[in-house]
Amino acid sequence: MTGDPKGNGGNGRAAALAADREAVLAANLRLYESLENGDLEALEEVWLSAADADDKTGVTCVHPGWPVLRGRAQVTRSYLLIMMNTEYIQFFLTDVEVEVQGDVALVTCTENILSGGEAEEEGELGPLVGGKVVASNLFRRTAAGWRLWSHHGSPVLTSGDDEEDEDRPE
Amino acid sequence: MTGDPKGNGGNGRAAALAADREAVLAANLRLYESLENGDLEALEEVWLSAADADDKTGVTCVHPGWPVLRGRAQVTRSYLLIMMNTEYIQFFLTDVEVEVQGDVALVTCTENILSGGEAEEEGELGPLVGGKVVASNLFRRTAAGWRLWSHHGSPVLTSGDDEEDEDRPE
Repeated sequence: MTGDPKGNGGNGRAAALAADREAVLAANLRLYESLENGDLEALEEVWLSAADADDKTGVTCVHPGWPVLRGRAQVTRSYLLIMMNTEYIQFFLTDVEVEVQGDVALVTCTENILSGGEAEEEGELGPLVGGKVVASNLFRRTAAGWRLWSHHGSPVLTSGDDEEDEDRPE
Repeated sequence: MTGDPKGNGGNGRAAALAADREAVLAANLRLYESLENGDLEALEEVWLSAADADDKTGVTCVHPGWPVLRGRAQVTRSYLLIMMNTEYIQFFLTDVEVEVQGDVALVTCTENILSGGEAEEEGELGPLVGGKVVASNLFRRTAAGWRLWSHHGSPVLTSGDDEEDEDRPE
């Protein structure tokens, strides 16, 4: 719309930005895949660690309806708890947007969640429930790639008329 | 705990970081003061604008229970709507933490909100309700100071046992 920068490495910058965006989106996907697979080890690799960052960094995490959790120990423990209480979970991401700013990137998206509890009878699937959550996922560039610095998820409680809000006023 | 860096400008860096943290916290306070005062103009100055940033940047905003709002027009309109429907609002911030990373800073805090609707009889105060919201406020350093890039607020729905979660596991 506003014209791509040309010359003076403009195409190089555009390509680098596109590569960054792709890498951030891949890291974002890994977050949800690790949850779907109940893979705590993979999940821990998604998050920023003291080894990744050049200084002591606190990660923060807000699950829908929860208070703020801070630090890797607390965040990991919360995911362990969620995984232990979730028999089945699947994320359908929509409305995914990414903004890269230097060494920080912000992904916002809607998590359309299908999850199930424990089955009442063995061998059967438990009751499935759907939910809609919006998330702000903040990533940092590290030597080991993009890592999650902060996750904030919140339930979408508004009714159908939020469709109106989602119209972009252009 | 880990020892402050000494010499080679270590004290200078520590002082600069302290100044950054203070400036970010002041910007964070301005967000809530502008809401308390119903001052849309002051609120608009808290947020990142195209003029502040060196490139086209989309701001994002999630109010408790709302979907993601993107872009200044949509965000400003949502605040106007909130202000029009709020007779009285006061924020008591607790558990405020700030992380500065280069030109980006993340503030997490709990908004203890006291708000009131329209009074039933003129001259009286409307019914007051209390609420607890956790917020992730992401700021960017600009030539005009720290400006809000993203706000994500969500209701705290857990009961008293979230106190246990808030214990830091050290």
